Amino acid sequence: MHTSIATVCLSGTLEEKLQAAASAGFDGVEIFTQDLVVSPTSPDQIRRRAQDAGLSLDLYQPFRNGVELEAHAFQDSLRRLNRTGELMNQLGTDTLLVCSNVASSAVADDALVAEQLHQLGEVAQEHGIRLAYEALAWGTHVNTHDHAHQLVMDADHPAVGTCLDSFHILSRGSDPADIAEMDPQKLFFVQLADAPLMHLDVLSWSRHHRVFPGEGDFDLVNLMSHLVRSGYSGPVSLEIFNDSFRQADVHRTAVDGLRSLRWLEDQTRRTLAGEMHDGAVRDRVELQALPEASAPSDWDFVELRTTSLGHTTRLLHRLGFRLGGHHRSKDVQVWLQGPVRVVVSEAGHSTRREPHVDPRARSEHQAVAEVSGLGFHVEDPAAAFARAVELGSTPVPREQLPGEVTLHGVYAPDGTEIFFGTGCADGLPEWLSEFGVEEDPLGAGDLITGIDHVNVAQKWQHYDEDVLFYTSALGLTSTPAQEVPGPSGLVRSQVMCSPDQTIQLPLNLAPTAAEQGSFVGVAYPEHIALASTDVREVARRAHRRGLKFLGIPENYYQDLITRFDLDAQTVDELRELNLLYDRDDHGDFLHFYTRTLGDVFMEVVERRGYTGFGAEDAPVRLAAQYRLQQSHQG
Amino acid sequence: MHTSIATVCLSGTLEEKLQAAASAGFDGVEIFTQDLVVSPTSPDQIRRRAQDAGLSLDLYQPFRNGVELEAHAFQDSLRRLNRTGELMNQLGTDTLLVCSNVASSAVADDALVAEQLHQLGEVAQEHGIRLAYEALAWGTHVNTHDHAHQLVMDADHPAVGTCLDSFHILSRGSDPADIAEMDPQKLFFVQLADAPLMHLDVLSWSRHHRVFPGEGDFDLVNLMSHLVRSGYSGPVSLEIFNDSFRQADVHRTAVDGLRSLRWLEDQTRRTLAGEMHDGAVRDRVELQALPEASAPSDWDFVELRTTSLGHTTRLLHRLGFRLGGHHRSKDVQVWLQGPVRVVVSEAGHSTRREPHVDPRARSEHQAVAEVSGLGFHVEDPAAAFARAVELGSTPVPREQLPGEVTLHGVYAPDGTEIFFGTGCADGLPEWLSEFGVEEDPLGAGDLITGIDHVNVAQKWQHYDEDVLFYTSALGLTSTPAQEVPGPSGLVRSQVMCSPDQTIQLPLNLAPTAAEQGSFVGVAYPEHIALASTDVREVARRAHRRGLKFLGIPENYYQDLITRFDLDAQTVDELRELNLLYDRDDHGDFLHFYTRTLGDVFMEVVERRGYTGFGAEDAPVRLAAQYRLQQSHQG
Repeated sequence: MHTSIATVCLSGTLEEKLQAAASAGFDGVEIFTQDLVVSPTSPDQIRRRAQDAGLSLDLYQPFRNGVELEAHAFQDSLRRLNRTGELMNQLGTDTLLVCSNVASSAVADDALVAEQLHQLGEVAQEHGIRLAYEALAWGTHVNTHDHAHQLVMDADHPAVGTCLDSFHILSRGSDPADIAEMDPQKLFFVQLADAPLMHLDVLSWSRHHRVFPGEGDFDLVNLMSHLVRSGYSGPVSLEIFNDSFRQADVHRTAVDGLRSLRWLEDQTRRTLAGEMHDGAVRDRVELQALPEASAPSDWDFVELRTTSLGHTTRLLHRLGFRLGGHHRSKDVQVWLQGPVRVVVSEAGHSTRREPHVDPRARSEHQAVAEVSGLGFHVEDPAAAFARAVELGSTPVPREQLPGEVTLHGVYAPDGTEIFFGTGCADGLPEWLSEFGVEEDPLGAGDLITGIDHVNVAQKWQHYDEDVLFYTSALGLTSTPAQEVPGPSGLVRSQVMCSPDQTIQLPLNLAPTAAEQGSFVGVAYPEHIALASTDVREVARRAHRRGLKFLGIPENYYQDLITRFDLDAQTVDELRELNLLYDRDDHGDFLHFYTRTLGDVFMEVVERRGYTGFGAEDAPVRLAAQYRLQQSHQG
Repeated sequence: MHTSIATVCLSGTLEEKLQAAASAGFDGVEIFTQDLVVSPTSPDQIRRRAQDAGLSLDLYQPFRNGVELEAHAFQDSLRRLNRTGELMNQLGTDTLLVCSNVASSAVADDALVAEQLHQLGEVAQEHGIRLAYEALAWGTHVNTHDHAHQLVMDADHPAVGTCLDSFHILSRGSDPADIAEMDPQKLFFVQLADAPLMHLDVLSWSRHHRVFPGEGDFDLVNLMSHLVRSGYSGPVSLEIFNDSFRQADVHRTAVDGLRSLRWLEDQTRRTLAGEMHDGAVRDRVELQALPEASAPSDWDFVELRTTSLGHTTRLLHRLGFRLGGHHRSKDVQVWLQGPVRVVVSEAGHSTRREPHVDPRARSEHQAVAEVSGLGFHVEDPAAAFARAVELGSTPVPREQLPGEVTLHGVYAPDGTEIFFGTGCADGLPEWLSEFGVEEDPLGAGDLITGIDHVNVAQKWQHYDEDVLFYTSALGLTSTPAQEVPGPSGLVRSQVMCSPDQTIQLPLNLAPTAAEQGSFVGVAYPEHIALASTDVREVARRAHRRGLKFLGIPENYYQDLITRFDLDAQTVDELRELNLLYDRDDHGDFLHFYTRTLGDVFMEVVERRGYTGFGAEDAPVRLAAQYRLQQSHQG
């Protein structure tokens, strides 16, 4: 599949955009007129730059309001097309996107439009270029892909074909099935965009909320399948307008974009697997496969990176963890309880959150402690690693001495290190032996039964990218987003899950950091939630061991009584143990929070059938964390 | 008018919210349950705090899904109301907001609902509280204000009345005229919110896009007029959910909110002026008036604050300005050309953009130069000043020696200093004499004929607030927003105009600064656009005097030919003089940009009937500024 991306998807100058598309691994780009117009680089130089970078210039766009015109205006359109053809020859681009007319003066006369397309085709042919006619969803008269294609067929000119754009097709709810029957010779170009389903006028939806395939709600695998069935083998290009992308780092966006196309290609291939066996589809279109990888079956470990080893290990001890041992060749410890393994590494270097801050420059309340890595059990770690890398992820460089287990790790877009490992029959991962742990460490007093969920903070510019990473590389699925009010803004939360719910990874989008220093920080920390079947006993032990709980206000307990009609004795116990309570249709939920250390805190939860994540209690936590932050600053 | 604000409008803790509402000058607040629940302060202490701050607690809210219930669920509602009544007695709040039911299980039986409201009224009466029943726009069965009011009338209980919320009424397109006929004794509470008209589901619209009165598209003056006609004299409270407010400074938001109510009160008073003469309306409801002030008739001056006097005066000289003189008692100069006066002050102190940066710590490319003040001619400067101050603006402190002209200045929310002065018959403002300018300084070579517009950058959290300030305090009107793409994101632009268009003030919303240091800065500077009837001659003189123009790429000129079919000679001249060109239905536009100095650049424009602001050319400028910024950093 020839992959392409419109320069309008990327931020920065045209030169920066070309470089980013090339280094992400795209085959080609679409040149957007405005990107060229504002550039000091001549068309001829752009052509050479693209050649040097190994990029084809697949499309020049847009040619606006050039058809469906009164005679006089059409003469000016022919003049403009002549000029544009000359420019495209300098650029070395052979396909021009011609949009359907959006002016109120557009002429609704199919025979005339076909005739005008034919005349434009004549001019195009003189310049050796082709015209790809596209129905904009808000075109005055031509606004569906089948209508545009019919006009192209009626125009009956070798230089005139159709451009399909998934946004314009799917945002109108059109069925893409007819694409499979179209003549692939008349399909000149394909642009892809996904989008979340919204009740919004289609123009605003298109201009601000397009996302890369797999990041929205459109069924692009279905659309692609029909396209492959038609025999189309031209470029598949991303054309996304999105407020986040325009402000995000151009290189990250390009990598994100190519990931989305690789994922889509792989998914389409799977969908068509049955049809491909008979050779009918495969003969015409080549679809690359990604290494097969199943979703994680379980947690392997969680890694905390900290500048404050004492605070960190005290916190773990108070929650009932025991020191498993120290790594034979690295400054890393492992702490154990039940099946949960927490790796603690000393941060001597910069961190993923604030890479430019010297950790030693921080005061105690500003200690760095963060969720730096997540280890998962998967069926085939090497395949999972290879898949993630083919999806554009950067491998984690880790020193490895002879005899040590190979670590298969990649960086998630949010900076978290993701490791793939295997579980063993006896439940004891091989790597534990490097820490001197040689037998099953299950202790009699272990009250923690697993990791319930791990909450990772996300920057808003990269939220969709992160969701796509966890979907495509880890095989998790996303649930609908929720919003939780906090003192400094709404916190958006979306849970990524493995098929059997063993892995639950809520991604939190903190409010825009415009008036805050850091995007995480004390008020919006990440956390690790541990599961227990007796959270009250965990809390009692933690109290005895001196844990600092997050304070819960009396008003909260009074409101619990009002909401749930709890009896006095239950509430007394909750209050005494700093526990919070929630209930849904499936059952009860008891949990408590520790105070924050650096950018992370711990939660212990006891689910009695309850399926939520305590969203009702999150505002209480956010407010308490905010007050602590204020008091540290004051 | 008793002014009130819901705590949910404001960011921070409940304690911070109370303080901000009090210091802005509100009479009371609504307490939102969640704000109380997350607070460590007891209801009793909240009551005392509010008393000490001079705030009444006008409402407690919301009581959700408490009516329209099956028998069993209604029993639990009565229990909850008992608990809530006790809490409200501790708070000292006598009115509880009861929302219409939004559950799918809500019962659609008006007689039953009236009966349930009556029973709830009985419980409320026992606690000495009142229930204000409100139709949510997305209520399952009760979702219009007239329906809710009819149920209240049917319930026929002294403790049961109606709560009106402008969002719920106007978002559904309901006509508020029937309010004038309602019995004011049965109107227990009024909540106001404005909102921009949007094609969005009403729940998302309500949760994220409410704004203060005057900041959206609702006709709240009409709604308020009907309310006054009804004789309602209870609290008028702001209830706004908005992503910006939640992240903005709590004190600013409170001031902004009270400004919106004062403006609304004044506008309502004007609308009802005819009816008030006969005493019928006035006798019942007291509406405060603001000092009358007309919109500015002309520019008085523009003030630049700079740490780089040499660069600044060189720029002015190259554009044809002459030094008028130095102020007798301050380190300030005035530069003159035609009717344009530019005051240049030396920044020895912090600036409005980056108040914490020592200006001396900056390199040449980082020189501070900013539009720090705007002077306007108004009919009555003292009245305009008084009006702005009553609308919550802070006066600008300026030293004034005996014999010097009194300066009437306030800070706009964006930090700009706004001054009100009078023009003189001979066109020479009195204050010029303090600079030693004693006669009409019109020079023979003056090619500048006025200020065309001044462009001021805005932070996104305060955009609506700034628009309301320029509307309510300066009497400007806003035009629909436009968006211009730049290399680091979309720039939103909205022009504030005086009635005769003499004053044109585009407000620019730069992309969220999440990945940038400063919110303005080299890439999104402000600018002063000077008008001329011969921009080519201004450009030629500037070239001779050594002005650094912003470079315009050749691709732009080639595109001009394609778009407008300009002849070669015209384009040669444009290119030679670094001019840009645009055209609309009304005429042509010629203009050029200087390079940026600090946070500001200058533009010179020649309008030949053209009414726009060169939005088509703005991307060219943004890209050129971005490239200069990159080259300075590189």
